[in-house]
Amino acid sequence: MQKVNIILVGFGRVGRAFYELLKEKYDYCRERYGLFLELRGIIRKSGAVLLSGTRKMVSEAEAGKEKSELSGWVQTFSLVDLLEEFKSGVLVDCTPSDLNTGEPGFSLMKTALSSGWHVVTASKGALVVHPSELAAEARQHQVALKASGATAAALPTLDVGLHSLAGAEILAIEGILNGTTNYILTRMSEGLSFSRALMEASEKGIAEPNPVQDIEGWDTAAKMIIIANRVLGTEIKLSEARVNGINGLTEEIMAKAARLGKTIKLIGRCSRETPEAPWKVEVGLALLNPDHPLAAVDGSNKGIIFYTDCMGYIVLAGGKSDPRGAAAALIKDIISIYWRDF
Amino acid sequence: MQKVNIILVGFGRVGRAFYELLKEKYDYCRERYGLFLELRGIIRKSGAVLLSGTRKMVSEAEAGKEKSELSGWVQTFSLVDLLEEFKSGVLVDCTPSDLNTGEPGFSLMKTALSSGWHVVTASKGALVVHPSELAAEARQHQVALKASGATAAALPTLDVGLHSLAGAEILAIEGILNGTTNYILTRMSEGLSFSRALMEASEKGIAEPNPVQDIEGWDTAAKMIIIANRVLGTEIKLSEARVNGINGLTEEIMAKAARLGKTIKLIGRCSRETPEAPWKVEVGLALLNPDHPLAAVDGSNKGIIFYTDCMGYIVLAGGKSDPRGAAAALIKDIISIYWRDF
Repeated sequence: MQKVNIILVGFGRVGRAFYELLKEKYDYCRERYGLFLELRGIIRKSGAVLLSGTRKMVSEAEAGKEKSELSGWVQTFSLVDLLEEFKSGVLVDCTPSDLNTGEPGFSLMKTALSSGWHVVTASKGALVVHPSELAAEARQHQVALKASGATAAALPTLDVGLHSLAGAEILAIEGILNGTTNYILTRMSEGLSFSRALMEASEKGIAEPNPVQDIEGWDTAAKMIIIANRVLGTEIKLSEARVNGINGLTEEIMAKAARLGKTIKLIGRCSRETPEAPWKVEVGLALLNPDHPLAAVDGSNKGIIFYTDCMGYIVLAGGKSDPRGAAAALIKDIISIYWRDF
Repeated sequence: MQKVNIILVGFGRVGRAFYELLKEKYDYCRERYGLFLELRGIIRKSGAVLLSGTRKMVSEAEAGKEKSELSGWVQTFSLVDLLEEFKSGVLVDCTPSDLNTGEPGFSLMKTALSSGWHVVTASKGALVVHPSELAAEARQHQVALKASGATAAALPTLDVGLHSLAGAEILAIEGILNGTTNYILTRMSEGLSFSRALMEASEKGIAEPNPVQDIEGWDTAAKMIIIANRVLGTEIKLSEARVNGINGLTEEIMAKAARLGKTIKLIGRCSRETPEAPWKVEVGLALLNPDHPLAAVDGSNKGIIFYTDCMGYIVLAGGKSDPRGAAAALIKDIISIYWRDF
């Protein structure tokens, strides 16, 4: 049995879902993995709150006293105070992704890693802007830096790429990595206009309030770059990727694709022309034949395919594409730091 | 950098493919994972051969002297001798699967585990007949017992079920786990008779010389039971599973399914009626709607789907379904024992 201290930064949709799911899964994680996952504090822009651990929160919730836990937000202590207070554990980063600066995730993650804390993140910015610096910091302090939450969340892209394909050489990676655009394309193929499909995605809570990065392909590019940098050891920057989105797609083009028996998907791709050539990341619309393994990935689902030298290809699809699915991916990453199946 | 001693038992199609792939991947595993994977000996029914390690084999092969390595099969030393000689490492079990007795894998694996050796297996028999005994032995000696090679090989069924879904509760598992029967069903849906399709599968090396266990569904049942026992913690026996194969399927039934717009697949399933009810394993033909995630898994491909409480469903498909793919899964399991990504 092991006690794991957890500090959560960011308390938006994913942060809140993590907070809720952690309480829900506390007993299961203790029984199945021997881990007491204790949330010690939450930090957000407007302040921080110190918590007495998940176990106490769960029993207080059962006694109907839950709300009190989240009432004491104060400005008087910082991440450094919390890291020092609890000595070791996991920082869970749910801050918003800023693909230009990598902040605030970068500074927070670097502080935690350099204090010997593991980091589990749902935020893409820092991993896209400063990947090698964070990797070096983690290596130096022999701690984990896990990013399932930033790379299609419940769909285990990094697990499979790093672990399940260990020993195989990856020849190329292709993915449908953005639920919003895939939902829009699916609805457009059913006859809706782009704007109607987008509106519907917003109403259903699939699209974020500002879906520009999704629509223009940058979210897909960021995820593919994080996957490539981790799995292939590349150091590709976002500015080096060739990125096109789904804007500009018309109903006429959709109809034409249908007449040809093809499906239009927004595909992120990492490949190289020869084994000696540099890896390149591209994002753009692709016409897929119906027997392409990603052609059937519909709605807000995601999918990824790894082509390998000795394992054939592996395709993965599904994975809940909402804050609860992202929260589950964060908990999975925490478990994977401490638990082994022998 | 770490030296890993490997002893291989069984030298049939998979054992030979492992021997070849290990040499091919020796340098890559050293560079990427810091592991020297050194094959120290091979044991088969007719004798054993002591080897000087993969590194020496690779350099001798480069010098054109490879064959000599495998010429000295003798009867004078046993597995116990080899385990004692090399003190620690991994036993790679490629013996044939006997679903009734679990031998010879069971005795060999138990001997290795009780000597503190890790075990990586491509053989289903022992895991189906004596699962708890082997698990207890591994736990007692704090060593790994990995079975990717016995559970759809390159398709990472156990990795995803155990690790990528950690923290989530699995509600049900469904899979197309046998390449031979899936190939036959695919060809029958294209108009071939059962016997023609089977003959074709044999000619292409997809079907094993004696495909009865595949055709009757026992291979699928065995794989699903191993997955369920590991991932769900069940202790289901093969005799408790309800198993039907593809024998008896006629061209008329195939044609009828096609008229209904359905696909016929041999599905292994593990589920329970309520969260309190016992888990059950069933294998049988199922009519799938075209939008079922396994409907598109064609030819000798395999696929699996995990339904979960908080991660949605995850579907996996592909994975090279031949001795080289199985060998790659064995190497993956060895790497996963020694390598962590931090």
